[in-house]
Amino acid sequence: MTDLKRSWVDSANSATCQFPLNNLPYGVFSIGAGPHRCGVAIGDRILDVAGLESAGIISFDGTLQSGIWNSFMALGQSHWRRLRHELTGLLAEDSDRQADIEPYLVPLKEAALHMPFEVAEFTDFYSGRHHATNIGTMFRGADNALPPNWLHLPIGYNGRASSVVVSGTDIQRPHGQLKGPDDEVPRFGPSQRFDIELELGAIVGQRSRGPISVQQAFNNIFGYVLLNDWSARDIQAWEYQPLGPFQAKATATTISAWIVTALALEPFRCSTPEREKELLAYLQEPGPMLYDIELEVGLRPQDNSETVICRTNYNEMYYSAAQQLAQHTSSGCPMRIGDLIGSGTISGAEKNSLGSLVELSWGGKEPIELNEGLRRSFVEDGDTLTLRGAARGNGYQIGFGSCAGTLSAAK
Amino acid sequence: MTDLKRSWVDSANSATCQFPLNNLPYGVFSIGAGPHRCGVAIGDRILDVAGLESAGIISFDGTLQSGIWNSFMALGQSHWRRLRHELTGLLAEDSDRQADIEPYLVPLKEAALHMPFEVAEFTDFYSGRHHATNIGTMFRGADNALPPNWLHLPIGYNGRASSVVVSGTDIQRPHGQLKGPDDEVPRFGPSQRFDIELELGAIVGQRSRGPISVQQAFNNIFGYVLLNDWSARDIQAWEYQPLGPFQAKATATTISAWIVTALALEPFRCSTPEREKELLAYLQEPGPMLYDIELEVGLRPQDNSETVICRTNYNEMYYSAAQQLAQHTSSGCPMRIGDLIGSGTISGAEKNSLGSLVELSWGGKEPIELNEGLRRSFVEDGDTLTLRGAARGNGYQIGFGSCAGTLSAAK
Repeated sequence: MTDLKRSWVDSANSATCQFPLNNLPYGVFSIGAGPHRCGVAIGDRILDVAGLESAGIISFDGTLQSGIWNSFMALGQSHWRRLRHELTGLLAEDSDRQADIEPYLVPLKEAALHMPFEVAEFTDFYSGRHHATNIGTMFRGADNALPPNWLHLPIGYNGRASSVVVSGTDIQRPHGQLKGPDDEVPRFGPSQRFDIELELGAIVGQRSRGPISVQQAFNNIFGYVLLNDWSARDIQAWEYQPLGPFQAKATATTISAWIVTALALEPFRCSTPEREKELLAYLQEPGPMLYDIELEVGLRPQDNSETVICRTNYNEMYYSAAQQLAQHTSSGCPMRIGDLIGSGTISGAEKNSLGSLVELSWGGKEPIELNEGLRRSFVEDGDTLTLRGAARGNGYQIGFGSCAGTLSAAK
Repeated sequence: MTDLKRSWVDSANSATCQFPLNNLPYGVFSIGAGPHRCGVAIGDRILDVAGLESAGIISFDGTLQSGIWNSFMALGQSHWRRLRHELTGLLAEDSDRQADIEPYLVPLKEAALHMPFEVAEFTDFYSGRHHATNIGTMFRGADNALPPNWLHLPIGYNGRASSVVVSGTDIQRPHGQLKGPDDEVPRFGPSQRFDIELELGAIVGQRSRGPISVQQAFNNIFGYVLLNDWSARDIQAWEYQPLGPFQAKATATTISAWIVTALALEPFRCSTPEREKELLAYLQEPGPMLYDIELEVGLRPQDNSETVICRTNYNEMYYSAAQQLAQHTSSGCPMRIGDLIGSGTISGAEKNSLGSLVELSWGGKEPIELNEGLRRSFVEDGDTLTLRGAARGNGYQIGFGSCAGTLSAAK
């Protein structure tokens, strides 16, 4: 297990800090009415890397001036490593550049955070085995829970990029066509079973054309964000056959504001679980490509305190993002910079490790208990849902910040 | 029925010309190694509207200089009408501007055509009743052919924008996971059941946030293209449950190079068929929003002549693009300029009016006859598939150009 790298930014050296020198996640911030700027979180500060580049302290072809990370991603792996290396040097405890760098530190709490990258397209997978089994049991019965293809390939579907929003954006309860099992005809009304899905999102940082290997896919992933794929279960139940979820997933998908880079997560690589069925060669991993990342979900009703309703780990996934991306390109599908790949809901085996309310409340039949005697089957108006994640090293953590959204009433 | 508008471009006045003055479709062309330019087809010429704008003859905020039509679309309906009105005036037989305009005419046959717009996201619907019934019968049996939701809402799924290509682009046979009904385990290999889908694509020309009405959706549609949604039926059969088609549809989607505007199609509006089930209010059309457009598919084997394998009409659709777009926004999904909405496969009731090979050959069991004794169940290497479409007025037609692709062998 690797140790904390100490920084001259004091707040970055605490074991409870999400953004130590080992992390250096990438985001986009603004101060007051100022423009969007590329920044890197360190301790309780944001390092204005756009400013550093303007001042000639670092140089990345001007890509840090664009107010979004896509152009930098396009530079490729060697530049990804170089920026991380240079920032690590500049911010390290023993750096002699503190006086030059200090003017570019902005207090995190004074900044507004924005979408860190432009989402090219969004694809959502279904690669959590406990989740797939639970949902399958509820929708199709225990005997047909896991679809026959599930152990042979990562199942995915195309989602909607236009509705991906950054943490803190309010979510409005959607309307949709609803038809209960006993209803004669469908009706149009507000979703009554609005849910979350705890996921990790992988960001594609390099273009590809044609099929790519799992190793190449791994190399092309720039970093990860927390991802909440808001889901209207009642809309989904009526619309999803035969072509999959559509409007049930189109209201919003929230991502965290900080991209934790694949480079920062390197010490936390771990293997996918043992295969129940041997995978075809094009899906086999040449090494550990999953990560040990602790995850949790908090639910805070309006004017109330938060209850943590789920604790799980990204290492529960049956397929890694690299395997998902390889599958995604297998038919020749071109990938672009900013493609976002959702892991699928990350549920553990235990009752309190389930990553969606439909699982936690077992389809609404067993409401979960919150603080102060409150109960929940699905998200209620005014509820704030917050995803958090951290990979834990020796005396430090690689935090993802938070991925939060508050549900407002249907209009 | 409206009459031909005569132009001083002689070739535009023939009844067999696809691009008379009534049409004026928008595309992007280049000559030799020159840049991509916005152009409008008239007779056997392209009018270089980027050049017209540079010369100050027309003025649209410089949007015609961008080499793609998205920026012009962003200007909105009143500008869409004004460009059409001004071009109609300049090109009309009685125009006194012929000498000013003539230098901006380029022979169509000397031009290379490119993607006419940047695809923001691609959504494919499933709104042809004959097609849905045929596919449903093959995949699920005659008793469950039409899914229970089908008559209540236009079913759609998100497709892949990165793989949309312009007519003339070669298509490579994809690999994928395949598992026949009698196979013990899946294998990875070239698709053996590679197919086409004859569709019309609607182009969203205005942004929206939140749900929009069918009328607003109709107003936001800029124009239409022919669309061939290449489909690997064997990959699809194994992967599509429970979340819908994914890699089966990700190899390529071909569109025609010319956008036929909704304004040009105005005289050809017609109603969707009588409803078998009354639609909920949010999906009801305030007037005719479908179009009478004759469609056909030609199949030309390598070194052979073309056989027309399908003749049908866009008026077969059960849901219009306006209804599809209203459904698409019902949960609050934001739409962007350049969103592409596929109609779904357009099949008629007759055997020779089916818009896909899987229907024409009934799952491969009844190969169709081509010229010279050749037969086809699915697309073979070297085959060129060409979609064509035309709305027919009095002595003229509004043609879509062609939407063609040749299949090359798997690599």
